[in-house]
Amino acid sequence: MPTYHLGIDLGGTNLRCAVFNENSHSLSRVSRPTEAHLGVDAVVEKMVEAMHEAADQAGTDLHNIASAGIGVPSPTDSFQGLVYHAPNMPGWSNIPLGKILRKKTGLAVIIENDANCAGWGEFVAGAGAGCQSMVMITLGTGIGGALILGGALHTGRDGAAGEIGHMCIQYGGRQCGCGGRGCVEAYASATSVVKRFTEAVTGGKASKLPVEGGVSCRDIFVAAGEGDACAAEIVDETATYLGVFCSSLAEILNPERCIFAGGMIQAGEAFIEKIRRACMGWNCHPSRTVEISAARLGQEAGLVGAARLAKKIICGE
Amino acid sequence: MPTYHLGIDLGGTNLRCAVFNENSHSLSRVSRPTEAHLGVDAVVEKMVEAMHEAADQAGTDLHNIASAGIGVPSPTDSFQGLVYHAPNMPGWSNIPLGKILRKKTGLAVIIENDANCAGWGEFVAGAGAGCQSMVMITLGTGIGGALILGGALHTGRDGAAGEIGHMCIQYGGRQCGCGGRGCVEAYASATSVVKRFTEAVTGGKASKLPVEGGVSCRDIFVAAGEGDACAAEIVDETATYLGVFCSSLAEILNPERCIFAGGMIQAGEAFIEKIRRACMGWNCHPSRTVEISAARLGQEAGLVGAARLAKKIICGE
Repeated sequence: MPTYHLGIDLGGTNLRCAVFNENSHSLSRVSRPTEAHLGVDAVVEKMVEAMHEAADQAGTDLHNIASAGIGVPSPTDSFQGLVYHAPNMPGWSNIPLGKILRKKTGLAVIIENDANCAGWGEFVAGAGAGCQSMVMITLGTGIGGALILGGALHTGRDGAAGEIGHMCIQYGGRQCGCGGRGCVEAYASATSVVKRFTEAVTGGKASKLPVEGGVSCRDIFVAAGEGDACAAEIVDETATYLGVFCSSLAEILNPERCIFAGGMIQAGEAFIEKIRRACMGWNCHPSRTVEISAARLGQEAGLVGAARLAKKIICGE
Repeated sequence: MPTYHLGIDLGGTNLRCAVFNENSHSLSRVSRPTEAHLGVDAVVEKMVEAMHEAADQAGTDLHNIASAGIGVPSPTDSFQGLVYHAPNMPGWSNIPLGKILRKKTGLAVIIENDANCAGWGEFVAGAGAGCQSMVMITLGTGIGGALILGGALHTGRDGAAGEIGHMCIQYGGRQCGCGGRGCVEAYASATSVVKRFTEAVTGGKASKLPVEGGVSCRDIFVAAGEGDACAAEIVDETATYLGVFCSSLAEILNPERCIFAGGMIQAGEAFIEKIRRACMGWNCHPSRTVEISAARLGQEAGLVGAARLAKKIICGE
């Protein structure tokens, strides 16, 4: 009887694959460049190779894998195993990846959006463990997320739920990549933090951090930590935007926890505490009581979540 | 075998009660003043009297009622039958209304927030019929709502989900009653429409509508319909705020429908169309595809929803 479970995190840059035992301990880890420019077929072949290799490393083969979960950078129809459209991977539009992988490997396969997989990973094995409802907020180039409500992943009508970065927090405000204005992503993503800081400095604010050659979000957080007033102001504002955002999510969904992931959370508990204070500025019960914390699994969340979600859906556990 | 179902809509002003047959057709209707100032016990007695009277009018008695659903103006613990805190009804804090009514009537009773009941009513018998996920947005003194996700009412950790009026759409903007700033309620509730119009006129904008003795939201919509430029501008701005709000909800939840209820929707399809256009200004899939429409059941939604929700939970249908 198959007792192993497999997860894949398919990214635009790398694809990673792991095999877990029935206690969800990782037994193997395979990573290789996605080379998405080679097209869908080539990427699928790499996935299949990675699956065999990961099983082999774990001392087993695909016949002993009970479930496989694949996280993809696209909205999905999980029921049909369909990848709708991965904007950063050429050719990935309406690809029946579930069907393709089932045919090539014989495995029972679940396809899910990567942010949802990461949220599920934190929910079952990270900062969300033990709760019934949480919002995962991932701060990166954009702001993405996942909603776990009443113990289940909420994916919406078209698998597009959790596009929380496009919540408007400033009507008529900063232009967002989506075409709208004032989205929280246009204020508090890593990209937007860099933009706001660069604008502040080129607008005349004094900072020890030179912006000419380009700065990273991490540079700004480090400078803030070292006492640079301009950088500190940008970081504080970012925490305030995120607190307001968290409050809105709490008022809408009344979850137990809001969990932040992404590079910015390396700034540590002081940054989370600022977010918390801004959220509590809203005096309603959901904002005052939602638990705000940092994600715990880092890069592992997507891989763990893909495997655990498939295990739950396919094996019912 | 009991085949009737009862619903109560407990409001701060009136309480209404109806009995429905197994096909959910209304057989009776009782309404009386709540007189909340008389205290919890007096209101409970009125509810029990109304239940008997509604059963009697329907040609039956309480023994033939299979389920009773009570909508209350408070967050609730539906599982425990607890009314947490009804701000407009003196003494209604942590009242175990489910237990009390079960003891007094012998009925199987479900307690649920009134906005959630109204949302459920529209979901099963109104503008949400046939869909699996919808957000109900009620425009009144404040802005309330209900979330139906994957065919189920989402009530959150403390029964407080759906406080959607406190989503921030304008960071640092207008003061809201909740203590926050920039909540959509501070822009687009009926109360806020009156406030914004009054500010515009007292600030010097010309309007044929006199504001000295006070105006109603309805007056402003009527004046806008009759070509008053100032009123029309306020109405258009309101629709835009609501469209942005709808878009944010769509991005977060990816529901099939957003359904607007409350007095303002009497302005008709032209107003809804303005909301729709503003929502589609966001270019993401959920905002472009969410169906926006007006509620259909009016005041009946809460009563129908309370009865149908109880029927579903208690009788499984």
